[in-house]
Amino acid sequence: MASSMVHCSDKLPFMNVETILHMKEGLDETSYAQNSSLQKRGMDTLKSLITNSATDVYLSQMPERFTVADLGCSSGPNALCLVEDIIRSIGKVCRGSSTQPPPEFSVLLNDLPTNDFNTIFFSLPEFTDRLKSAARSDEWGRPMVFLSGVPGSFYGRLFPRQSVHFICSCSSLHWLSQVPPGLFDQTTNAPINKGKMYISDTSPFAVQLAYFRQFQRDFSLFLKSRAAEVLPGGRMVLAMLGRQSESRADRRTNFLWELLSESFAALVSKGLVGQDKVDAYNVPFYAPSLREVEEEVRREGSFGVDHVQAQEINLSSSGDAKEDGRTVSMAIRAIQESMLSHHFGPDVVDALFHEYTQLVTESMEREEVKSVQIGVLVTRL
Amino acid sequence: MASSMVHCSDKLPFMNVETILHMKEGLDETSYAQNSSLQKRGMDTLKSLITNSATDVYLSQMPERFTVADLGCSSGPNALCLVEDIIRSIGKVCRGSSTQPPPEFSVLLNDLPTNDFNTIFFSLPEFTDRLKSAARSDEWGRPMVFLSGVPGSFYGRLFPRQSVHFICSCSSLHWLSQVPPGLFDQTTNAPINKGKMYISDTSPFAVQLAYFRQFQRDFSLFLKSRAAEVLPGGRMVLAMLGRQSESRADRRTNFLWELLSESFAALVSKGLVGQDKVDAYNVPFYAPSLREVEEEVRREGSFGVDHVQAQEINLSSSGDAKEDGRTVSMAIRAIQESMLSHHFGPDVVDALFHEYTQLVTESMEREEVKSVQIGVLVTRL
Repeated sequence: MASSMVHCSDKLPFMNVETILHMKEGLDETSYAQNSSLQKRGMDTLKSLITNSATDVYLSQMPERFTVADLGCSSGPNALCLVEDIIRSIGKVCRGSSTQPPPEFSVLLNDLPTNDFNTIFFSLPEFTDRLKSAARSDEWGRPMVFLSGVPGSFYGRLFPRQSVHFICSCSSLHWLSQVPPGLFDQTTNAPINKGKMYISDTSPFAVQLAYFRQFQRDFSLFLKSRAAEVLPGGRMVLAMLGRQSESRADRRTNFLWELLSESFAALVSKGLVGQDKVDAYNVPFYAPSLREVEEEVRREGSFGVDHVQAQEINLSSSGDAKEDGRTVSMAIRAIQESMLSHHFGPDVVDALFHEYTQLVTESMEREEVKSVQIGVLVTRL
Repeated sequence: MASSMVHCSDKLPFMNVETILHMKEGLDETSYAQNSSLQKRGMDTLKSLITNSATDVYLSQMPERFTVADLGCSSGPNALCLVEDIIRSIGKVCRGSSTQPPPEFSVLLNDLPTNDFNTIFFSLPEFTDRLKSAARSDEWGRPMVFLSGVPGSFYGRLFPRQSVHFICSCSSLHWLSQVPPGLFDQTTNAPINKGKMYISDTSPFAVQLAYFRQFQRDFSLFLKSRAAEVLPGGRMVLAMLGRQSESRADRRTNFLWELLSESFAALVSKGLVGQDKVDAYNVPFYAPSLREVEEEVRREGSFGVDHVQAQEINLSSSGDAKEDGRTVSMAIRAIQESMLSHHFGPDVVDALFHEYTQLVTESMEREEVKSVQIGVLVTRL
């Protein structure tokens, strides 16, 4: 196995996101599978945009094989949701036409190589059963839906040239390929984003800039890679956490990271974690504004923007602050545990999320806590 | 998760091979990854047949994208071996030509949904690194090899129509899709293959027939499925445990199963396992003769047979019976553990393989123990 700690140019230990970051595997209480209801709500707001635009691509091209990819599929019940909706929608259109048999579907589920693909694959027989009525069947009654798992970073090529009709990606593109370089002083190597793990309103401007530049590099590489893979006329729906304002220190975007920093401060004051460890921890995350996303799409030049949207998602879903606080805290834990364990050791995680659940709950008692999901629909020119 | 115990037509509990059978997952001492050296030796005898025939397909078609599939790839170091050899071989031919850039490679690794794909995918970064010199690289120096995992039974469709150039399958096609029906008396439901788990020279003829008919059904379904998927001129190398004689009670083929039955007899006599449990256990395995394989290929009609071979593999590899006995026993354990645990419960496995290691070692002290691997090379007409 490749070492997960390599040294980057500024001579500081560098977290190899590709081998560390993964949603918590398995199906137990702390797994991503059990704690991804917030992401599901984000997906639900995009469902009709995704199914309608995928169906449009199908109708404009009527290929015998329709290839759809989900990038950053993760491993819970959400993994197969969107592709199932797409297959149903196209199946329905074809059943409504007397001349057009449904296509064969090739379904490509992508995530990092450390993702728990086994858990997705275990649920494949049920997925296939559910699709029996939706897709064309072979002579044994099995639906012509061919599913595969594609491990790899979407910041690079994943699929052969001109092989994909439709791509969706939900709740993944806010993850960067690495923690940005430039978060440590070039001369002294001292961390410049002390006590914080993401852009905060107390962070120096250099922190904002480092994060934004990493987003630009990553997102343009993403677009260039997909440009090679998506057939002309093919489309992508890309949705991620983002900002409604142009301010990168936007409170709403950064709120949950702020509370995680506060939880660490509590652990430092109890002597459970060293301040230097906290100062050196930053997340490979960036929540772009719609304008920042559109600018990169235009600059890269292979895709045209058809539609953009921003949507607030109220995290206070049940109305009971205690229950909602726990839901949010468990969701963040399922996402962050692999990286936190890697940096701080596994022992700190329980104590950290004990603090965090309290802080999130207190906030939710005071106010509605929301996050912003931005989405774009683009077409390969 | 779908129940793994369903009832088949003869009203006896039926083992759903698709949800039970898998090589022992992970990387620890009893894993298939650590205990697949025998299968590797089988693969090594086929290496030049596989690379040469894949390269021939490439040279005759020169596609921009060359798609190769390994069926029953399992999860150890063997999983990526054959495709790596193929990519290197084609890369070499292309580097020898001034006009032909290497193709993009699409690599499809198939096994049952319960296979440990995660362990294969974890090793993907190393695989990609090793291929840097062999395959065409993108502008960032990364090889244009696109790997995906395809979960599903090869006794049915796995890939879209006419999408694959070359298929190999080693040490997998001797597994049937199910334990054959017909191993229980139609009136009394009593097991007819008492004390045995596969065809033995004491088994009634009905046992041979039940196994052979299941092989015919499965293998013809395999061929029909692949006929839809393989492009005209595409090829397959299929290798499996088989027989050199036409006798289905061939001692060499059945020897390791006989010893496993003997090990169970020892456990029964110690009161550790009930005789009725042993009587009801049969393996979903069949070792065909070359003639039986050729006959099915001819009957199905989509493929022409180019080459057949049978090869003895001496299981006494080190010359030290104790070491060789342990190697064989651990290999059989890594293959059989999922099914044995399912039928007898997990507690019996250690005791069983303690007996088995002794019996295999004693046999190897007396004689050379060999198995037979048969292989066919076929071309899609």
